Parts: sequence; structure tokens; C-alpha cells
Amino acid sequence: MSEPYTLILLRHGNSDWNQKNLFTGWVDVRLSEQGVGEAANAGTLLAESGLTPDILYTSLLSRAIQTADIALDTADRLWIPVKRSWRLNERHYGALQGKDKAQTLAEYGPEQFQTWRRSFDVPPPPIAPDDQYAQTDDPRYADIDGELPATEALKNVIDRLLPYWESEIVPDLRSGKTVLVTAHGNSLRALVKHLDGISDDEIAGLNIPTGIPLVYRLDENLSPIAPAEYLDPEAAAAGAAAVAAQGKK
Amino acid sequence: MSEPYTLILLRHGNSDWNQKNLFTGWVDVRLSEQGVGEAANAGTLLAESGLTPDILYTSLLSRAIQTADIALDTADRLWIPVKRSWRLNERHYGALQGKDKAQTLAEYGPEQFQTWRRSFDVPPPPIAPDDQYAQTDDPRYADIDGELPATEALKNVIDRLLPYWESEIVPDLRSGKTVLVTAHGNSLRALVKHLDGISDDEIAGLNIPTGIPLVYRLDENLSPIAPAEYLDPEAAAAGAAAVAAQGKK
Repeated sequence: MSEPYTLILLRHGNSDWNQKNLFTGWVDVRLSEQGVGEAANAGTLLAESGLTPDILYTSLLSRAIQTADIALDTADRLWIPVKRSWRLNERHYGALQGKDKAQTLAEYGPEQFQTWRRSFDVPPPPIAPDDQYAQTDDPRYADIDGELPATEALKNVIDRLLPYWESEIVPDLRSGKTVLVTAHGNSLRALVKHLDGISDDEIAGLNIPTGIPLVYRLDENLSPIAPAEYLDPEAAAAGAAAVAAQGKK
Repeated sequence: MSEPYTLILLRHGNSDWNQKNLFTGWVDVRLSEQGVGEAANAGTLLAESGLTPDILYTSLLSRAIQTADIALDTADRLWIPVKRSWRLNERHYGALQGKDKAQTLAEYGPEQFQTWRRSFDVPPPPIAPDDQYAQTDDPRYADIDGELPATEALKNVIDRLLPYWESEIVPDLRSGKTVLVTAHGNSLRALVKHLDGISDDEIAGLNIPTGIPLVYRLDENLSPIAPAEYLDPEAAAAGAAAVAAQGKK
């Protein structure tokens, strides 16, 4: 059989709002020029690794879709099947969406700031439906059953992501496909927490760098047969440190 | 109900091999700089028209996928679901793939040249499996049941396209979705022939310009309720004339 199964996680490259140091969440900002370069580099890393994704999963947010399209174009795999879901979206950042991170840190202090960024189950205040950064009438969510989230903690991301993981992604892995998931800092942290069995407390310290493919080899129970590996470990370590330092500019 | 159904056909923009005046077929060449601009313009035309594709169909060829990605990005619809199929591919040009059009015209004469380009049911000679422009080991076709075509006339394109049209695209139209099909000169001619009931003889004179969305409104029997319209009729007429003149440079 095709076990071990191969899963590749890829966080989208730097976006316009990463550069402006704003909380983004579900706001549909685009890749920055730097992010476009990171996405192309991710494609080069994939091609050099010899890994050949058979299917792509993305969120409904443009920055993840752009990243996947550029990376797969670079790796000459633009033609693979694609599935998209809001369940792979970034964590909804509630009322913080559109706010400056440094200003929020100064205004609310480091403890509150860190709680909103990294608490496992305490979400920021919900966003108002008429807030300019709410997704109230966004057509991409018109078909979602039930209510849209108005804010999320990591726990909420896990709760809406895992059913999709089980029902869609796992069957593709079990059929022997190499699966590429191009998504976001927090939706990928949710998946990594699940795969690596990281505790609710310890997940706060885990940061995922942008634009560097993270490769899992999974056994028949979808457990990693060895620690997951970044295709460029040195750049990944530097990138994770940069994410951890966010808000402190 | 949502009838009339809306179908949008889009031929990929100018490719590197269009510019070099080579027969392309299934060879996976990329958009030229001009083609990238045409794709973005198609997105602008879509956005200005108020048409909002709910689902995208593409071939497995990069130039069609690039065109769709750029157009949908411009129209802020990058997030819609995507289905791809080799059944939407360009006509396989057989042994002519990779050949210079003007040189082929000079070598074989205008009658043979026009037969290969526009005969309804006479395909060019088949390509040899070891030809550098054959798709013998191309991984994108690894899962195709049955044999890959080694050459095709328009009739063969119709025969492999219509089952997909009926089984995949029509149900999406009937469910009320606005469907965007981004494909190729001959796969779109096949579809237009079917939709407009054009005879085997008359289809030879029909040319589809690159990069200009063609909009059908279809009744419950999938018959056009009025002639299909290009979103930029003037540019479309000029573009169709340019296609008709191909090979004569």
C-alpha cells in the first residue's frame, strides 16, 4: 500500500496586512510582493524535494489560494484537483480584525494582547455585523450552513476544522494521494496540534513560518511516523521566531 | 427558478507558442505576457458585466488554468470551486504538435493545411509515443481510463467532451449556478457547435477569439434563448479575424 501517507502543510506567504502589522483573520487581503516571492520559493522547494502533490486543499481566502497557485505553477502541478473550504480559513479575529497589532498591544497591555493572540479558548470580542471588516455579505460564505463565526479562539478553529479533516482530507490520504493543504497560521496550528497530540497549553508556543512546506509522513492511524520536517529547516526556524515576535515592532 | 441558465465560455489568452506560430494542441505551453494581459482584461470585463461565476471548469493545460486564475483574481472570485478535466483540453494536434504553422503551410500546401486545421473529421497523422511533444509520461493523464488520443479532429473533441458536458456541467447549470468554462479554441468550438446546432460544414468558419468572455443564456432544454454575446463584441470580432488568418504570417 501507499502508506506512509504524505501530507504537506503550507502557510501562505506574507500579506499586505502582515506588512502593515494589522490583525487580519477573515479579511481577504492579498499577498505582498514578498509573499509572492515566498510562494514561488515554496514551489521550488516542493519541486526540488521530489514531492508531487496529487490534490490541493485551500481555504476560501485569496492569500492562501494565491500562494497555492503560485507554488504549484512553479512546481509544474497547476493541473491537480482543488478543493476549497471555509473550514481551512484563518482564525476569525473578531473585533480585532483591521486593528493595528502594536497599537492594540500598547492599548491593552501585553497580558491581554497575548491572551487574544494565543489563548486556547478565550476568543477576542465578537465583531459587529456592520463593522467594515466583518464578512456579513461576503458571497463566498453565502452557502455556509448555520451562522458564521463572529470571533474564534484556536479551540473554535479546531472544532470547525477537524470534521472537514476527517471527512475530506483523510480519505484522500488513505487513497494514497499526496495532499497539499495551503492555509493559515492558526488553521495549520490547529491541524499540527491534532496530528502531534500537542496539549492545550503547549500549543501557545508553536509558531508556523510562512511559505515553507512542512511534510508529515503518517501511518495507517494518521499518526506521524517521525517528526514532521520543513523543506528548509533553517529558514523555517528563522520564520517561526519572526512570527513569535509579532506585534512587538 | 434560476432559469435562464448562464454559461460563460473563455478561451485562454495568447500563449508562448501562439506567438511563435507553432501548433500546440496538448503541449503544455504557458501564457505569453500578452496572454496574461488578456486574462486580466477578461476578469475586468466579467466584473464590469456584473456576472458572478459560481463555479469554474478548466482543462488540464496550464494556459487555461492560468487564464482562469488571473481572470477570477481580477474579478475577486478566486475562491469559487474548481473542476478540471482533460475532456476540456485543446484538440490533440497529432504529429503537427510543435511544428511551425507557416512552414507546414508552405510544405504541404493550403489545401492539406486547411484540412488539418478545420476538417470536421479528418485528424492529422498521429504523434509517435516517443515524440518530444507527445504526452506519453505526463503525470496529469496518468488516471485517464482507456488510451490517450494521439491525434484528434474536431469530431473526436466533441465525442470526448459532450459526455463531460452532460454529466458534470449541465447539472451545475440546472442547479442555478453561473458556470465559467475556461478552455481552448477547439474545445470551445465543439461546445458552441453543440449549443448553437451548427452543422459539420459550417463549424469550419467559426473562430473564437482569445480572452473575451462569451455569454450564453440557456433555457431549460439548454438551448440559447438568444444568440450568445461577447462581453466586448468589437474586440471579439477583431480577435476572431486574427484567428482565421493564422498560419498566414
